[in-house]
Order: sequence, then structure tokens, then C-alpha cells
Amino acid sequence: MQRGDGRRVDELRPVEFQVDFTENPLASVLCSMGRTRVLCTVCEEDSVPRFLHGSGRGWVTAEYAMLPGSTDRRSERDVTRGRPSGRSQEIQRLIGRSLRAVVELSALGERTLWVDCDVLQADGGTRTASITGAYTALAIAVERLRARSALGDGPLVDSVAAVSVGLVDGRVVLDLPYEEDSRAEVDMNIVATGSGRFVEVQGTAEQGTFSAEQLGEMTALAQRGIAELSALQREAVARARRD
Amino acid sequence: MQRGDGRRVDELRPVEFQVDFTENPLASVLCSMGRTRVLCTVCEEDSVPRFLHGSGRGWVTAEYAMLPGSTDRRSERDVTRGRPSGRSQEIQRLIGRSLRAVVELSALGERTLWVDCDVLQADGGTRTASITGAYTALAIAVERLRARSALGDGPLVDSVAAVSVGLVDGRVVLDLPYEEDSRAEVDMNIVATGSGRFVEVQGTAEQGTFSAEQLGEMTALAQRGIAELSALQREAVARARRD
Amino acid sequence: MQRGDGRRVDELRPVEFQVDFTENPLASVLCSMGRTRVLCTVCEEDSVPRFLHGSGRGWVTAEYAMLPGSTDRRSERDVTRGRPSGRSQEIQRLIGRSLRAVVELSALGERTLWVDCDVLQADGGTRTASITGAYTALAIAVERLRARSALGDGPLVDSVAAVSVGLVDGRVVLDLPYEEDSRAEVDMNIVATGSGRFVEVQGTAEQGTFSAEQLGEMTALAQRGIAELSALQREAVARARRD
Amino acid sequence: MQRGDGRRVDELRPVEFQVDFTENPLASVLCSMGRTRVLCTVCEEDSVPRFLHGSGRGWVTAEYAMLPGSTDRRSERDVTRGRPSGRSQEIQRLIGRSLRAVVELSALGERTLWVDCDVLQADGGTRTASITGAYTALAIAVERLRARSALGDGPLVDSVAAVSVGLVDGRVVLDLPYEEDSRAEVDMNIVATGSGRFVEVQGTAEQGTFSAEQLGEMTALAQRGIAELSALQREAVARARRD
Amino acid sequence: MQRGDGRRVDELRPVEFQVDFTENPLASVLCSMGRTRVLCTVCEEDSVPRFLHGSGRGWVTAEYAMLPGSTDRRSERDVTRGRPSGRSQEIQRLIGRSLRAVVELSALGERTLWVDCDVLQADGGTRTASITGAYTALAIAVERLRARSALGDGPLVDSVAAVSVGLVDGRVVLDLPYEEDSRAEVDMNIVATGSGRFVEVQGTAEQGTFSAEQLGEMTALAQRGIAELSALQREAVARARRD
Amino acid sequence: MQRGDGRRVDELRPVEFQVDFTENPLASVLCSMGRTRVLCTVCEEDSVPRFLHGSGRGWVTAEYAMLPGSTDRRSERDVTRGRPSGRSQEIQRLIGRSLRAVVELSALGERTLWVDCDVLQADGGTRTASITGAYTALAIAVERLRARSALGDGPLVDSVAAVSVGLVDGRVVLDLPYEEDSRAEVDMNIVATGSGRFVEVQGTAEQGTFSAEQLGEMTALAQRGIAELSALQREAVARARRD
Repeated sequence: MQRGDGRRVDELRPVEFQVDFTENPLASVLCSMGRTRVLCTVCEEDSVPRFLHGSGRGWVTAEYAMLPGSTDRRSERDVTRGRPSGRSQEIQRLIGRSLRAVVELSALGERTLWVDCDVLQADGGTRTASITGAYTALAIAVERLRARSALGDGPLVDSVAAVSVGLVDGRVVLDLPYEEDSRAEVDMNIVATGSGRFVEVQGTAEQGTFSAEQLGEMTALAQRGIAELSALQREAVARARRD
Repeated sequence: MQRGDGRRVDELRPVEFQVDFTENPLASVLCSMGRTRVLCTVCEEDSVPRFLHGSGRGWVTAEYAMLPGSTDRRSERDVTRGRPSGRSQEIQRLIGRSLRAVVELSALGERTLWVDCDVLQADGGTRTASITGAYTALAIAVERLRARSALGDGPLVDSVAAVSVGLVDGRVVLDLPYEEDSRAEVDMNIVATGSGRFVEVQGTAEQGTFSAEQLGEMTALAQRGIAELSALQREAVARARRD
Repeated sequence: MQRGDGRRVDELRPVEFQVDFTENPLASVLCSMGRTRVLCTVCEEDSVPRFLHGSGRGWVTAEYAMLPGSTDRRSERDVTRGRPSGRSQEIQRLIGRSLRAVVELSALGERTLWVDCDVLQADGGTRTASITGAYTALAIAVERLRARSALGDGPLVDSVAAVSVGLVDGRVVLDLPYEEDSRAEVDMNIVATGSGRFVEVQGTAEQGTFSAEQLGEMTALAQRGIAELSALQREAVARARRD
Repeated sequence: MQRGDGRRVDELRPVEFQVDFTENPLASVLCSMGRTRVLCTVCEEDSVPRFLHGSGRGWVTAEYAMLPGSTDRRSERDVTRGRPSGRSQEIQRLIGRSLRAVVELSALGERTLWVDCDVLQADGGTRTASITGAYTALAIAVERLRARSALGDGPLVDSVAAVSVGLVDGRVVLDLPYEEDSRAEVDMNIVATGSGRFVEVQGTAEQGTFSAEQLGEMTALAQRGIAELSALQREAVARARRD
Repeated sequence: MQRGDGRRVDELRPVEFQVDFTENPLASVLCSMGRTRVLCTVCEEDSVPRFLHGSGRGWVTAEYAMLPGSTDRRSERDVTRGRPSGRSQEIQRLIGRSLRAVVELSALGERTLWVDCDVLQADGGTRTASITGAYTALAIAVERLRARSALGDGPLVDSVAAVSVGLVDGRVVLDLPYEEDSRAEVDMNIVATGSGRFVEVQGTAEQGTFSAEQLGEMTALAQRGIAELSALQREAVARARRD
Repeated sequence: MQRGDGRRVDELRPVEFQVDFTENPLASVLCSMGRTRVLCTVCEEDSVPRFLHGSGRGWVTAEYAMLPGSTDRRSERDVTRGRPSGRSQEIQRLIGRSLRAVVELSALGERTLWVDCDVLQADGGTRTASITGAYTALAIAVERLRARSALGDGPLVDSVAAVSVGLVDGRVVLDLPYEEDSRAEVDMNIVATGSGRFVEVQGTAEQGTFSAEQLGEMTALAQRGIAELSALQREAVARARRD
């Protein structure tokens, strides 16, 4: 039994990492998962937040926003209401935590790496595509800093990627587009490392509730999807290194 | 091997629901889990948010705040910065979703029930205590509305409670006080119904990462804790009914 | 001729100071005047506002807020509108000025004492109960700082308390609950010291106006009420010292 | 014994009401009390705040601001911090209440009269000069509305004016300029009607405290000053009528 | 004598309009002028601002923002400061006015066309590229509305485009990249129609001043540049029609 | 053929500079152009913005606001919406740039001159009257600083003034009052120096568009108007010097 877009329940949408889509930042990756497209850029700043002054440690932080025209129906800019929406804040805190889980901050030096995830086109899974693309850009940025001897070994201790899973029409499915996401019984976002361990597990019953068994199935399926994404991330970073 | 406060790893802190701690709201419960104390009040408003106008459905929404003196070191009021912090917003969205998971909104009529969770004293687990206390206050409020024939059968389809679990010093433990929470390797908040099904599962690796097996152990332990809390909620509601 | 709650016109509502209602702050007093209940906490911060840097003087400041469920009809949080209401600001400036009137700031050292007054239940007179409770908590906090040798003699040069008086149905009455306050012709809030001298006199004709003679009667009645409150404050501080 | 500017302790500064200083508003009065100069304008709006919709009653409201160059040392605009300061709000609430004390709102019809008090030059007593000038402008505006038959008899039931008194160097003095105000032991602002009754009494001990006897002396002196101001207001309104 | 990038003084940078770069909006154009790249999207909303309710007229409005990673050194998001910067507001007002100059609003019906200009990469001239790209997207959007019979003839009465000119090292030059813009003596932005008439002329002496003769030279050069841009816009719209 | 107020098309409205209208600032000029009246004050501050710290250079900055009663229909204060309107910001940036065009900042020393332009009465041309009045106040302030030896020669390298021109009923006219401005086909604001060179040229087609020839006519007419204004500025500054 097929899904609306013809995929199997355990199949990812087509993934693409377009490296150096823009040229000004340290690294820039346009990450596509199906029709969802997120521009992830990494910029360097020679200072750290106040709570790290003098600690010798660096910082990695993320911001997330959707362009107004990224959705079917125009979405209002956060600035119009004067502040990031609760949703935007929740997502950018998640991206930041996920990246820091694989960064050894003491190996960064007292610098901040700003990772910006701007959604150009939204079709479900923008937060997971943001994490997956953000890590890819971060890894390329780190290689470039090392290439110009601005950084030594080691800040990246693993890779990190994310994917959604859910319960749709009673079936456990991987990587939900908007059409599935909007009617899912359960919606989960899983963040895990290239070595297969969990960083974040967030599951919400949108309609009804779910059992321990279903939780187990969903997390297992997500782990397989993330393994695929991790391999694609490695290829993209290697490609950037050669260019 | 005992924990800092003498509990077993699978033991809840002492739980207390002080009903009608204040008298002006429809219902008011001071919920204590150990030293964490949250005042949960329910107020009724005869209107609904714009997106429900004319739908015949009601709404349940929550707000969460910590009093400045609730923490060891005074915490700044949200209003000082002009807006709820990202953390406050994340928590109040979680409380609202959790309550709505057990409410049949079409049975509420076009009214809003506002649930306010104000933390008077914080010692870890303020969001889970808020959910557990909020449901208790909500159930009492619903009974009172029905007693005065303002509401028919059915808005509450199940009960809901929440607890934290985590990985501390490599052990899976239940209901973390601040001292454990601040040094936990993994911190999870689980929301589940009285019938034992999950509503929300949120796990974050604060240091390192976690395996699928550990995830399973933590969620199973949380389910047992929530079963105990559900029984205590039932008793508190029954007590309020008799008074 | 009796009042709605059976009191004489010159009689205070029952007063209670519940010391150490919460444990995290330096001092915590739940002050009740009739059904009005305000949680007053004092926290210490090792710095002072910019205008006092290097002056060797300390600072005492207050914040005031009402919990949404403290009133009969739920009141919106200040943070929802993005800033303290004019009323909240007026009250917290009044509390701060009243406390500083009895504190020798040069004897405090370069520290700030934050006094937070959070109204758990409102039934008229929340600003006067806040001042009366705040002084009590402040006095206990000062004794505790001195007990651990963090402070020398003298920061408190007198005590301070406050009460409302008003003209209701043509009669001068003491300590108005909400029911009287909402229909008073004149509403006054008087702040005075334990030694019987005025710190603040604020009278407003809500309906009509008032004569010099009525002003004299109201302030005299308030002075008697404040003398009673001052005695109760002394007892509460003495009790806290013994415990 | 004379004051810094040669006045007796019970003497007002020179008062001037310059009517129609600007021409666009319904009425415009530049009110000077010594060097303090406040531009008071009255504008009409054909609607009322939401809480009066359909009530048949009108509203009178005030706004207050100081021009940045009005003080010796430039003062920051309220808009720079994004909101009216606590002081501005306190003052504009006071002006509004004072005016409404002499207006029969049900005789206004469903319109709002906006009274703006903008301080062009500040030398103490800006809030009392604002009230005194605002009433004068309001009375002229009401006469003009009646002259064009837009209003019937009766909205103004009395006149209102305000003055400061204080305790400076141990003496009770009337109408304090900035130099006295900044070192006063006690600072009071009194608002009273043309018929000699109090509308507001606000006294603050800035240094030390004050006795009941001193309170009586200060309010009596203020009443004499307000009687003089009321006579000058009547003359200004009569002059405007003739022009 | 050549410029830094090899162009003649009267030569535009390479221009490209990538139509349907994203698919959700009614029209989407990625407009490149040299390295400057702006994503211009047009969304439709079935309502108009309050001042046009019931007028039968439509509205065209624009918003402008730069992605943080669009510049060499990361630029802060507007939302971080809580509001659009003065610069952003100035630019989006300019874009809106420029578009409305060629739209017959009464032929639009009561709908709003939102035009969003988001700068993906900035190298000078982002406001003029925004106008040029925005018109192109708007023209395509209008054709699509007409194709589905949602719109009749006539809303677009002309085309509009914009370019910068300036005085750099004493020479009048066309279409300044960032490197020239940052050291220009005079910086002008000119908006004109396809028929060669001015809509906006904004010239600023950044260093020194300029003469009437120089003003004439600069505006004439801009007119020639805009004629070229107008031809390219026509081609892009024709291409979109065929696809 | 005459204009509504009887002027020729190339005639300025009556201009007046009332020096020392208020006494607290370093300089204060009430600038009238017809019925438009702007109070321009200059205050000194002994510091500079962060980007100039330690540079030895000074700064000149401007703020602009309209009093609510300055317009026919009361205008809302900027602070009510929590921030300067886009229009206010655009204007105050323009005033600041215009003044800095004739100031040698390195000759100012590390001080800031704040120029505040507050519109007391508005009848068109408030931004150009602000610039013209602001320069006059600035020149007087600079002379006063030099008179007390707080400043050496040279900060002012030229004078600056501004005027509006426009296309009204097909005719090019100088110095538009509100009645003309509101129905003008084209509205231009020109800023130029006493020596006749342009600082800013801002022209907007409000209805229709304009040709290069019309642009030339309008700028030439503005230059003649500004020459007249420059002469009047010199007289006002000379008068202030003698008093």
C-alpha cells in the first residue's frame, strides 16, 4: 500500500545538499528533502555570549525562520508581531541543542558559529531538514576553518541528522510531507547521531494517544532513516572538500 | 544504592494536592511534588479564540510562569523582557496540548477554560507538576460546572499526568529534583493518560547521547510513575467532590 | 451600624503573617489581610543599579504582580501586553519608596534587596498588604543577613506599614475590602512608620470630592490602624527570630 | 525670610494662559507657571473606548510628555524605550482622573475629548501646571462645542486646578520650582475644585517623614493657592469667549 | 578606464530573472544583478487593509528583509531587535510605492497582493534589484490571475524598474556593487517606468555635495539603464507565459 | 494665476526664526514657515555613540516628532505603538544626514549634539522646516560653545536648508502647504547648502510620473528657494550673536 507521493512507508523523500548556494558565509548549504528547501548558512563571530567570556570555550547557536512565501498561504513574518513566535523559538532551540551535542565546545576557541536556517519552501519536516542541512554546513565550515589553520582537530565528535516519523491512518511512516503531517495521529521528530544514538526524541499525539509498542516502532524506523541521511551528509562534505 | 534524598530510583517524591488553596477561581489546586509547588487555577471565560467562533466547540489553554522568588537565585520576570521567554512558551504550549488530549472540545460549549500554572517554589519538574496539578484542577472545575448544570456529560475522556525520568550517573531514575536534573546525562518528560497511553514523549541528551534500550527503560519507568499519579489525582478529585 | 463583613468602621480585617511560606528566598512572608493574600519574598543580589556603582550604598527595590486567578474574573498577565500596566508600575514604585523610607542605604553595602509582592488572592487593599508584608519580610531578611555577619547594624531605622481608609456611604471606614472599595466615594492609601509619621498619603475622590475635615478624619483613622499593624509586624519578626 | 526666587512662602509663581497658541486643535492653551511651560491641547474624536460603547456616555482622557529639550539635561523620549515611562503613565492617569472629576460624562454624548499636555520647558510642577492648563483648554473647548450646538448644557460641573506644596528647609512652601523640589523633605501635589474641595491629595516624604500637623498646614496652603488659580482660569476662559 | 569588475561606467551587471524558483506562491522570481540575489514572491490575500474596506479597490504592499548570511559579516535579524530597522522600513515603503505607481488599484478588486523581497545574497543595490524583481513577479502573478479568470484587464498600466547611479572617484557610474557603493561620493536610486518616466528619484551626498549638472548626468544614465532592465523584464514575463 | 493662499508659484511662505523660544537647551529656535511651526532645540552630551569611541570625532544626530495636536485631526503618539513610525524614522535620518553634510565631525571633539525637531503645528513641509530650523539652532549652538571656548574653529563648513517643490495641477510650485501637498502629482524635498550644492534630492510621483525636464525645473526652483532661506538663516544667527 503506497503513500500519496508513491513512496513506501519506510522511504525518505529525495534528499539534496546544494553546497555554496550563496558565497558570502563561511559555508552555505541549500538542503532539500522533497519539496521542503532550507538554506543553511554558517557565519563566524570572534566573540562568545557573556556566560562564556574568558572560559576558552566557543559556542554554536542557531536561528530559524520561514520566508513569508514559503508556505501555500502567505505566513506573517515574526518581526511583524515584534518577536519570534513560540514555534520559531522552540525550533531554533532544538537546532542549537542538536548541533552542540556533536561539538566539543572547548576545541572551538572563543568564537561563535552562527547557523541560520531559512526555509525557502515548506512542505513538512522543516525542522528536521534544518538540522540535517545545518550539520552539513557546519561540518564544511569547520573544515574550511581548519584548512586556513584557524582551528585545530576535534570540534566535531560525531555527525547529527534528524527525521520525522509518525502514525498516519494507523500506519507508522517515515519523513512526512505536509499533507501527511496535517492529519497524522502521532507526529515525532527524532534527532540522532551518525553512530546511531539518540540526541532528541519528541513525540506528540495530535489526535488520540499512542502505546509503548508504537513508540518503539517509530523510533526504530527513524533510526534507519537517519542512518541513510548520515551517509548522504558524509558524501556532501567530501564533495565540498574536493571542490 | 540510594539517591541524594534517600529515595529509590523508581520512587516518586511525596505528592500533595491542596484543593481550594485560593477561593476566587472556579478551581484552585496547590500541587506539591517534593519541594516543587505549583498553584494551578482554572477560570472560565464565555468566549473562544477567533478560529473557533461559531464552531460550537470550546477551548482549553494554559499559561505558565515562575514567581521571581521561586528559585534559589531570583529569576527575572518575563514581563521585564517584554515577552514570555522561549522556555515559558514551550512549557505553556506543552501544558495546553496535554490537557486538550483528554478533553472533548465539542462537549465544552463555546467557552474557554484558562488554566494558570504559577510556580511558587521550584525544585525540578515544574512542568510535569504543572500538568499533573492542572489536570486535577480542571477535573474539579468540570465537576463544578456540571453540578450547576452549566455543562453536560463528557468533556473529560481520560485523565492525564506527567513525570520526569532521566539518566543520572548512568542509572535510570524517576522524578528528578533540581540537584539531579542539573547534572543528568538525559532528561525526559513524559505525559500519559490514566489509561496508560502516551500523549507526549520529550527526551533530550544534555550530555552525551542515549540508546534505544535506554529509551525503552526510561519510558517504562515513567509509565509506572504516572499510574501512581493518576490514582492520587482520582483521590483528590473525589475528596473535592465530597467537600 | 455594621459593615458588610460585620466589622466596626475602625476595625482591621484579620491579619496574618505566615513566615517562610516558601524556602528558597532569603525571607518569605505570606501576608493575609482578610481574604487578600500576598506572597512577599526578599532575594539578595550582589550588585546595585548603575547609578549607585562605586557609591558604597545599597538599594531596595520592589516588583508587584497579581496572579491571573487572584481575582473573581481572570485578569490578564502583564506580560501578555508586553509590559507592566500603569497600575502595576505605580504600585511597585510606591512599595519601593515606602521601604526605602526606613532603610539607611549606606548601611546596606553595595547589594540590592529585591522584594517581590505577588498577589495570590485579591479582595481589596493589595497594595497596602504588599507594603505591610514586604516590610515584614525585609526585616526578617535583614536579621538573617546580620546573623551570618553579612551585614552590620542599622540599615532599618524604623518600621513601615500601610492601610486603606475611605469614605463609603458617607462614613469614614478603615481597611476596605473589594466590595467597599468599588463603591467608595473617596479612597485613600496611607503609609506610615512604626513611630507614627507619614511616608505617603494618597487620596483620590472616585465619586464627588472631599473636604479638609474629612481628610483629617481619614488620616487619623489610618494612623490608628497602622499602629496596630506595626505591633503585629514586630511580633512576626520576633517569632521568626526565635524559630 | 525669602525664597531663592524672591517669593514669599505662600506665593505662586507668575501664571499665564496663552489661549490659541496653536490653531489646529479645538482648543490650545500654553500654560506658564514661572519658567514651567506646558502646551495643552484638546482634540475631539467621534468615538469612545470599548467599555463605553453604546452607553451614551463620553470620555475625557489625557496624555503627557516632556520634549527632550525641556529639561536642563536632555531627557530621552519615551518612544526610545518603547513605552511611556512609569512616571509619564502615573502623571497622565492623574490628569485624566482630575479632569473627569468635574465632567458629567453622560452630558458629553458618545465622544472622546483627548487632552494632550506637552511640556515645552520644565522647571518643577509640570504635572500641576498640566492639570491647571488642561482644565482651561477643556473649558474653552466645551464652550466652542456648545457655540456650534454640538453639545448641550452641563458637562462641566465645577472647575479644577492643581498646585504643589512641600516642606523645604523645614518650612511649608507653595508652588515649588525645580531647585526647591529637588531638595524638598516632603513633596505634595494637591488637586482641588474651584469650590474648594479636594480631588487628589498625594504627598511623599522624599527625605524623612512628616507629621499630621504638617500635613494639615500643607493642604491648607495648597487650597489657598488653588483658589487663586481658579480665579485666573475663569478670567482666561472669559477672555477666550470674548475674542 | 575600467571599473573594479571590468565594466564600463555605463554598463549594468549581468541580470537574470529565474522564474518559479519556488512553487508555493502565486509567482516567484529569483532576481540576480551581479552577485546580488533577491527572491521576490507574490501571494494573494482575499482582503484589503481597513482604509480600503468596501472601496472596491485592491492593494499592493511589499516587505523587504535580508537573510543574516546574505552579507559578508552576518547581519542581525530585524526580529532580534523586535522591529524592522529604519532602513528596512524605508526600503519596503519605497518598493510598495514604486509598484503601486504602475497598478490601477480599482482594477484589482478587493484583494491584496503581498510582494516579499528577501535578499539571499547582498552585493550592493539590493533595493533596486528588489523593485526590478518584484515588478517581474507581480506581472507574472497578474497574468496567472487573469489566466484563471480571477482578474480582468488592466491592473498594470506600465512596467517599473530601478537602478542605482553614483559619483565614484569623480565619475558618474551605473549600477554600483558594494565595493563602489561604500566609497561613493554620491549615491542615487532611481525608479522609472518602461515608458521612461520617473517614479522616484533619491539622491544622497554621502561625502561632499553635488551640482545640478551632475544630477542631470546621473539621472540620464539611470534612464538608459532602466530602459535595458525594462526590456529584460518583458522577456522574462513572456518566457513565463510560454512555459 | 495665483495659488490658494495668494502666493506666486515661486514664492516661499513667510519664514520666521524665533531664537531662544525656550531657555534650557544650548540653543532653541521656533521655526515657522507659514502655519507650519517646528521647535528645534540643540543639547550637548559629553559622549559619542559606541562606533566613535576613541576616534576623537564628534556626532550630530536628530530626532523628529509631531505633537498629537499639531494636525487637524489628532495624530497618535509614536510611543502608543511602541516605536517611531516608519515616517518618523525616515525623517529623522534625513535631518541627521543633512546636518552632518555641513559639519566637520573631527572638529567637534568627542561630544554629541542632539537636535530635536518637535512639530507644534503642521501645515505641510514639516521635514524641510525641521532641517532649516535645525541648522539655524545648530549654528547658534556652535557659536555659543565657541564663545565659552568649548570648541575651536571649523565644525561648520557650510550652511544647509531645505524646501519642498512639487507638481500641482500641472504647474511646478515652491513650498507646498498641506492643501497642495495632499493633491500634488509629484512631491519633492530638496536639501542644499548655502553655496548652492545639493545634499539630498528626494522626489516621489504620488499620482502619475514625471519627466526629466520637469525634474530639472523643480530642482532649479528649489535652489532659488533655498538661496532665500540661507540668507534668512544668516540673519537669524547674526541676530542671536548680537543679543
